[in-house]
Amino acid sequence: MLARPDILALQALARRLADAARVETLKHFRAPLDVVSKTTDFDPVTIADRDAEAAMRALLAEVRPEDGILGEEMGATAGTSGLTWVLDPIDGTRAYISGTPTWGVLIAVQDQTGPILGLIDQPFTGERFEGGPDGAIWSRGEDRRDLAVRSTTDLASATLLTTFPEVGTPVQGAAFRRVSAACQLTRYGLDCYGYALLAAGQVDLVIEAGLQPYDVAGPIAVIQAAGGLATTWEGAPAHNGGTMLAAATPALHAAAMKLLNA
Amino acid sequence: MLARPDILALQALARRLADAARVETLKHFRAPLDVVSKTTDFDPVTIADRDAEAAMRALLAEVRPEDGILGEEMGATAGTSGLTWVLDPIDGTRAYISGTPTWGVLIAVQDQTGPILGLIDQPFTGERFEGGPDGAIWSRGEDRRDLAVRSTTDLASATLLTTFPEVGTPVQGAAFRRVSAACQLTRYGLDCYGYALLAAGQVDLVIEAGLQPYDVAGPIAVIQAAGGLATTWEGAPAHNGGTMLAAATPALHAAAMKLLNA
Repeated sequence: MLARPDILALQALARRLADAARVETLKHFRAPLDVVSKTTDFDPVTIADRDAEAAMRALLAEVRPEDGILGEEMGATAGTSGLTWVLDPIDGTRAYISGTPTWGVLIAVQDQTGPILGLIDQPFTGERFEGGPDGAIWSRGEDRRDLAVRSTTDLASATLLTTFPEVGTPVQGAAFRRVSAACQLTRYGLDCYGYALLAAGQVDLVIEAGLQPYDVAGPIAVIQAAGGLATTWEGAPAHNGGTMLAAATPALHAAAMKLLNA
Repeated sequence: MLARPDILALQALARRLADAARVETLKHFRAPLDVVSKTTDFDPVTIADRDAEAAMRALLAEVRPEDGILGEEMGATAGTSGLTWVLDPIDGTRAYISGTPTWGVLIAVQDQTGPILGLIDQPFTGERFEGGPDGAIWSRGEDRRDLAVRSTTDLASATLLTTFPEVGTPVQGAAFRRVSAACQLTRYGLDCYGYALLAAGQVDLVIEAGLQPYDVAGPIAVIQAAGGLATTWEGAPAHNGGTMLAAATPALHAAAMKLLNA
């Protein structure tokens, strides 16, 4: 266990990383941009993804060379401290290249049991959603507010978010649609901003599949600090990626999990 | 035909209406809110929708009592000038109650042939997308830039937006999916912000169905002023609602229309 001053120091550094990434992502946002696909499917990456991760890695190399790093664009770098920085320089690159304000920079610090703290940063709106030792906090410039999930317990009055309508495999898509059919409202296309809205008490459920560790580490920290739950569809720790069932309350989590696994 | 000074005066008033609506929508955004459904389906409306329209109507009653008004929440008010203000106080109320930054206030002035000028306002990001006699303009606080659609001509490199994955009726959904299958990237959930991104040259196509006149009048003015096309799926004027095919270029418009009607 880390002592509180150590965790606060890590949180302060996470904010510096987010500030550094903001400069790089905003430089290219809505500017003409070369987009390259990383796979034969359209899996876009841009110089903004790479430069933002490089900026965060440069800061870590200087301040915390003993920590490991797992980043979307530059892979895993081993450390000796037992701590790993998990970085997604742009979560939602498809949203980024489309000009929407719903992509984000994801940063977390984790040990082998999962995230200790994390954040979701949206550079264009200027919003930062943080989860750490003092709970969950939203900030925008000088504005600052505590974040808390809402108290919804029944699916029939819940708002559900996901990014892609197909969700994952056909079987996963069918499982998602069972939950969606039971909810009041389903919305699409928000990437990591959906997790931020769950932590902010604006929506009740986020269900995703096909995730990597760097897609979820920051969001898990924010959601848990705001009082929510974030597990796999089977209820297991979600920080290794795969599926994600994030919920405002245990009752909602249980109800959605039952339908996902029906 | 209105003289240029008259159009500029109308545009200045449209901005004042948008400023007035901003106050009302931001007052309730992400605050606890009573949500009422207008139909047996979940078609939410809030006090923010109603107060924003009332604020705009109050200003019009004072400054332009001779004009007609068509508003989403308070219906049609006849005028004598031949001009009608078409108002959607919150386009994307579902997005609004979910806390996303992609809803908007839509304002247009039209005669019987269609919109003369219009705007899409996003109060939370502070962005305004306007189409009028001096072309299309994006502004955010003191920042100001001309808007122009991009030059994509083939579907295979196009980004397509819509709001709901089902799009409209099952037949309309199938038509949409023919276009989507031919595009590089399809994104969901943006409501009127999608039209703004088309005018801004960030995406190439927006296809929607089940629309009302107040959903499209403002966007049509912005898209046309930015150099794009905005018609029904059959290529007819779209300001009476129904379907919308908005495209960056004539080639893209023709290619998408062919698939929609295949």
